[in-house]
Amino acid sequence: MRFATLPDGSPDGRLHLVSRDNTRCIPAEGVQTLLALMDDWDAHAPALEAQYAALNAGGGAPFDAAAARAPLPRAWQWLDGSAYDSHGDLMQKVFGLDPNPRGRPLMYQGMSDRFYGGTDDIPLPSEEDGIDFEGEFGVICDSVPMGSTPAEAAARIRLVVQINDWSLRRLAPIEMKTGFGWIQAKPACSVAPVALTPGELGDAWRDARVDLPLTVALNGAPFGHAEGYPMSYGFDELLAHAAQSRDLVAGTVLGSGTVSNDDYREVGSSCLAERRAIELLDEGAPRTPFMRFGDRVTIECRSRDRAPLFGTIDQMVIKGGRT
Amino acid sequence: MRFATLPDGSPDGRLHLVSRDNTRCIPAEGVQTLLALMDDWDAHAPALEAQYAALNAGGGAPFDAAAARAPLPRAWQWLDGSAYDSHGDLMQKVFGLDPNPRGRPLMYQGMSDRFYGGTDDIPLPSEEDGIDFEGEFGVICDSVPMGSTPAEAAARIRLVVQINDWSLRRLAPIEMKTGFGWIQAKPACSVAPVALTPGELGDAWRDARVDLPLTVALNGAPFGHAEGYPMSYGFDELLAHAAQSRDLVAGTVLGSGTVSNDDYREVGSSCLAERRAIELLDEGAPRTPFMRFGDRVTIECRSRDRAPLFGTIDQMVIKGGRT
Repeated sequence: MRFATLPDGSPDGRLHLVSRDNTRCIPAEGVQTLLALMDDWDAHAPALEAQYAALNAGGGAPFDAAAARAPLPRAWQWLDGSAYDSHGDLMQKVFGLDPNPRGRPLMYQGMSDRFYGGTDDIPLPSEEDGIDFEGEFGVICDSVPMGSTPAEAAARIRLVVQINDWSLRRLAPIEMKTGFGWIQAKPACSVAPVALTPGELGDAWRDARVDLPLTVALNGAPFGHAEGYPMSYGFDELLAHAAQSRDLVAGTVLGSGTVSNDDYREVGSSCLAERRAIELLDEGAPRTPFMRFGDRVTIECRSRDRAPLFGTIDQMVIKGGRT
Repeated sequence: MRFATLPDGSPDGRLHLVSRDNTRCIPAEGVQTLLALMDDWDAHAPALEAQYAALNAGGGAPFDAAAARAPLPRAWQWLDGSAYDSHGDLMQKVFGLDPNPRGRPLMYQGMSDRFYGGTDDIPLPSEEDGIDFEGEFGVICDSVPMGSTPAEAAARIRLVVQINDWSLRRLAPIEMKTGFGWIQAKPACSVAPVALTPGELGDAWRDARVDLPLTVALNGAPFGHAEGYPMSYGFDELLAHAAQSRDLVAGTVLGSGTVSNDDYREVGSSCLAERRAIELLDEGAPRTPFMRFGDRVTIECRSRDRAPLFGTIDQMVIKGGRT
C-alpha cells in the first residue's frame, strides 16, 4: 500500500491511499489519519488493502504530491540512527572529534511534533548556523515491546519513508561535545509525500534495508546518488537497539541517518557536511558552502526501473524566527 | 489552578481540577484532557479559573492522588536540561568525562510518548544497567515561537510539575561518548500527580525557578532535600535555548535536570549516581548501590509551611521487558 496525507485544516491531515503509480488517490476508508492507523494497524489493514486494490484498478482523484503534507505530520517519537559508517567517519573528521565506536548503533532522539511536507519551505533562524540537508530513509513501526529482538522488530515495520533531516552544522559539534545530543542543531525534518509498505519495494526491501540509490540535487545540480543498502545495522537492529529499555510506541519514526557509501568520491554525498569533509581531506579545506536562504534541495528515490516510490522532496530554506 | 489526570481508559485520561489542599477534585469543564487544554490554553483558562474558585469553596469528589496518572500521560515533546552545575560536575567526574562547558545550557530530547504516574511501578530490563532515579522540577509551556527571548518564553509557562527522570547509569556514559545523547539510558519518566500554575507556588516561583526543597527518600530512608532555586539557567532561559531553531509545540515538557546544590554533603542528593560520585571523591569508591527490583523511591516537594503541592512520587522498580 501507498499512503499520503493531504491538508484538511486539522493537525494530522487526512489520510489517503495513493495508487501504485503515484498518480491517483482516494481518502482512506475507516480511518482519518496515519496517526490513528498506526494505533490500530492490524484492524484497519485488510479493508485498506481491498481499497488499495480497487484504486489500482481505476478511479480516485488526481494525486497532487506537491500539495501533500508529511505522511505523519507529527508523531510521538522520532529516533534517528547513523547507520552508514562512511558518513559517521567523515563527520567526526570534519568536527574534529574522536572516531565513532563500532559495535553499537548510533542514535539520537529528535523533535517529532512537526514533520514538514516534501515541498514546504523550511524556516531557519540564520545562514550562519551552517544549514545542511541530510537525505535518508526511515521506517514507521507498530508498537515494539521492550526487549524485542531484531527479528521481532522487523515484523513490526509497517511503512518505509524518505526523509530530509535538516541540520545546523555549526551548532552540531558544540552540542555533541556535551554528550547530550542535539537540540538546536536538529530542527524539524521533512518527509517525502508517499509512505510505502515494505512490499511496495519488492526485492529492493532486503535485510530491513532499502536497496536503492537516493538521488540528491542542490539548486538543480546533481549532488549524490549513494546506495541505501550498505547500512551497518538494518532497521530491524536499529529498532531493537531503541527498544532495549523502552516500549516503542506505535507510529515511532526511525531514520537510517544520512545515506553514504564508502566510494563517496564516485557516488557523491547526501549532505553538504560530508562533501565538505571530503574536500577537507582532499584539498585541505572545505570549498562547498552551506545553504543560503533561497537555496533548494531535491531528494528522490526511484525503483531500478525508474518507477516513482516516495515522491520528491524539493524545498527551499527561508529566513525564519523572530527578527 | 491545580490539575490532575485520572484514568478513564483513554490514552490521555480525563483532566480534573484539584482543590488547593489537594483533597478534592472535579472533572474539568469544556476540555477533556491536559493535551487538549495545552492546545488552547487561553480559550479555556477563564472558565477553568471560575471552576477552580468554586471547587476551593467546596464540593467535588475526594482526590485519590495514588490513582492519578501523570498530568500529561504523553506529550509531543520532552526536553530535559541539566541546570544544576553541582550535579553536572559530579556526573562528569564519575563518568570519567571532561568537565561540562559553561556558558550554554545542557539539554537533551527524551521520550515523550509515555510519562508514568507518580505511583506506577517502573518496569526496567535489568538490574545490571545501574537503575537510578533523578528528582527534578519541570514546566509545561504553551507554544513558544522560534527565536523567543527568555522573557517571551517565561510568559508562555503554564504549569509546573515534579518529575522523576529514570536513568540507567551503566549505559549513560557509553551513549554520551557518541555525542548523540541517550536512548537506552533514558527510559520513560514519571510525573507527580498534580500540575500547578506558577501562581500556586506564590513567592516560591521566583526567577522562573522553584524556590523550594525537593525531598527524596530511598526505601523509606531520607536521601536528599536539595533546594530547587540554584539553577544556573531558569526555565525561561532553558525554553529560549530550546526555541533557538524550532518552534516549541504547545504542551512541551521541559525539565530542570536533577536538583542539586553545592553543599551536597549537607543537603544530600536527588539521585544515586551523584551520591556515588561524592563517595568516589570522599572515600575512593562508590558505596551506595544502584536500585534493585523491589526498591522504592519517594520524591516530594511541599511549600515552606508544609502545604502539599505536586503530590508524591512513590514508586517501585520491577523487572520488565521480554525474558
